[in-house]
Amino acid sequence: MPNISQRGQAMPPSPIRKLVPYAEAAKKKGITVYHLNIGQPDIETPKPVLDAVRQSEFKILEYSHSAGNESYRRKLTGYYAKFDITVDHTEIIVTTGGSEAILFGFMACLNPGDEVIIPEPFYANYNGFAVEANVNVVPVTSYIDNGFALPPIGEFEKLITPKTRAILICNPNNPTGYLYSRAEMEVLKEICLKHNLFLFSDEAYREFCYDGENISALNLTGMDNHVVVFDTISKRYSACGGRIGAVVTHNREILDSVMKFAQARLSPPSFAQIAAEAAVDLPDDYFDGIKAEYQARRDLLVELLNRIPGVFCPNPGGAFYAIARLPIDNADKFCQWLLESFSHEGQTVMLAPATGFYATAGLGRQEVRLAYVLNRESIAKAMETLAKALEVYPGKA
Amino acid sequence: MPNISQRGQAMPPSPIRKLVPYAEAAKKKGITVYHLNIGQPDIETPKPVLDAVRQSEFKILEYSHSAGNESYRRKLTGYYAKFDITVDHTEIIVTTGGSEAILFGFMACLNPGDEVIIPEPFYANYNGFAVEANVNVVPVTSYIDNGFALPPIGEFEKLITPKTRAILICNPNNPTGYLYSRAEMEVLKEICLKHNLFLFSDEAYREFCYDGENISALNLTGMDNHVVVFDTISKRYSACGGRIGAVVTHNREILDSVMKFAQARLSPPSFAQIAAEAAVDLPDDYFDGIKAEYQARRDLLVELLNRIPGVFCPNPGGAFYAIARLPIDNADKFCQWLLESFSHEGQTVMLAPATGFYATAGLGRQEVRLAYVLNRESIAKAMETLAKALEVYPGKA
Repeated sequence: MPNISQRGQAMPPSPIRKLVPYAEAAKKKGITVYHLNIGQPDIETPKPVLDAVRQSEFKILEYSHSAGNESYRRKLTGYYAKFDITVDHTEIIVTTGGSEAILFGFMACLNPGDEVIIPEPFYANYNGFAVEANVNVVPVTSYIDNGFALPPIGEFEKLITPKTRAILICNPNNPTGYLYSRAEMEVLKEICLKHNLFLFSDEAYREFCYDGENISALNLTGMDNHVVVFDTISKRYSACGGRIGAVVTHNREILDSVMKFAQARLSPPSFAQIAAEAAVDLPDDYFDGIKAEYQARRDLLVELLNRIPGVFCPNPGGAFYAIARLPIDNADKFCQWLLESFSHEGQTVMLAPATGFYATAGLGRQEVRLAYVLNRESIAKAMETLAKALEVYPGKA
Repeated sequence: MPNISQRGQAMPPSPIRKLVPYAEAAKKKGITVYHLNIGQPDIETPKPVLDAVRQSEFKILEYSHSAGNESYRRKLTGYYAKFDITVDHTEIIVTTGGSEAILFGFMACLNPGDEVIIPEPFYANYNGFAVEANVNVVPVTSYIDNGFALPPIGEFEKLITPKTRAILICNPNNPTGYLYSRAEMEVLKEICLKHNLFLFSDEAYREFCYDGENISALNLTGMDNHVVVFDTISKRYSACGGRIGAVVTHNREILDSVMKFAQARLSPPSFAQIAAEAAVDLPDDYFDGIKAEYQARRDLLVELLNRIPGVFCPNPGGAFYAIARLPIDNADKFCQWLLESFSHEGQTVMLAPATGFYATAGLGRQEVRLAYVLNRESIAKAMETLAKALEVYPGKA
């Protein structure tokens, strides 16, 4: 029997999904599980977005342009203009989800063995795309005590080697919810210009900023050849299953290269491009209600967490995640124990151990990520349940 | 400005699409262009397939399971059973088009620097996926004079090195239309078992076999750990834009590995999975009409081609492609000339130069690929136009 590849073995399994069998077992026992572990919003996809697909009238489900439908890309330039981002439609390549945007960015910009610096904790799937592209992730640690602010410039510079080719941020951040300030974005600009690095910016949560301004990497001046934005409609319009994202950059060489990767896989999904195009036409106030809802959830979640003895949760400025430090020995054990051995009034909570978001071994052992993708009533019940759990958890620290 | 990657530079542009600007220019001049150059069928997507999406009633466009909806995978086992392929739903991982199936197969099975032997001419995008996976394609040449039959076992064995890890076939073949016989499939089995190689089998055109039987690689006995099938609904149901494919294998290690790649990109497109599931429920006679139509087109195309002085086109047993040898100096020049400098009664033809399907430099210079994705009337007119063009082409050989 032939062996599978080293890459196939090295590929990391999803750290978020490894607890799924325990959640399924809990549910089989009749326990209600509050899912704060994944970034699948409970917000309904806007009706006009789904209706655009349902009312479509084409007769052949054809390939689209490899870069995505031109009508959609042209419309997107208007979307970006609302954020003071000036791009033309040839500077946008539509991808199959933000996932493919990240993969194409890595593939087009980085050679095997190159290094990309990423503030940790970070979105765990970056590891997977790095393995696929044979690229090495170098973490620079951010800390819960200052709310996961950007590490100082000196910490980045300590890590820069001749192999360093890029910095990758997620802003606002998954998993920390941190929203980078203008000053922090300027620091990143300074490092990238000084060391001639690409700045990859994953802006999946652009709309969800509650305190302060969202500065896109594309808003930085003098960085046209350095900035590559990874975008997606997944969270913005609660359209995760559409699998529509985009690579956005002013760098023509990157665009030409990404286009070749795009041609190899022929086209992004046609149905969801119809949905995505309709989404751009949503009224500007669409996000007001959604944002208010997420912000109310955040406020409630953070307040209730910080009321629990021994728990610390900084107030995240954006996205729909928070990381909390718990008085526990081991987050992986605790999260499994919640599902396997605990319930309160027939309920328990599923959380994501933060260990899966750190590349440095040993970090995040007292931290968990919570996605506030449930309504406030459920969040309140989940926090009550968590508080009870922490009272009786045998591995309390 | 940072340099893009060597991989980004090495990535081949689509050889099929490079003539597009010339076609666009011809159309601007008012010339009708018969598109025989691409594999986008003109057959309508079955109405129940599109209706399943249009009549869907969910409210949130959620991520699906990373391996694809279980309901769809379970139904697919019944589809495969019709071809005497026994798989359970855990042996199927739904991918974003056949494209992603190929990429995942390469990534999971092959290390950087490994070699995969592919009979040439072959589907040009295999080159792109090989670059992405840092794998080397080693061509074994098949010849138009025997209709592109499988090269003799000795030709494969000459190419096998310690780096050889797999053979990749497309059956029935794109671009040749060749349908591998049972004897040829047994030869492939023998080589793979003897040299401990994976057998990758791209079976995108499984339904479209006109002469003789379609033998899936999954029908080979004793090859459970060697065979990986790349599948897609694109051609089968004229649903290219859905972007739904599958990796199918009995090899558990490959399945576990592919699953990790699938988790990194979260899920295949949700809308099109609904379409794909509905497609499995189409009545068995759905393909009868489609096959009869393609076969009638093939018969017409091949007959008309062989009537043109100096043209030779073997009769392809499957898919919807044919390769013809023309009395010309250079297929790339000729195909460009057809668009740039020729028209007959306001019409011209767009063909794919076969050079783009050969990895060996210099091969295919007198050959073109024709996709019979137009109705018979258009095919007849296109062949008349081609005959006229060959009368006046200045580079006649």
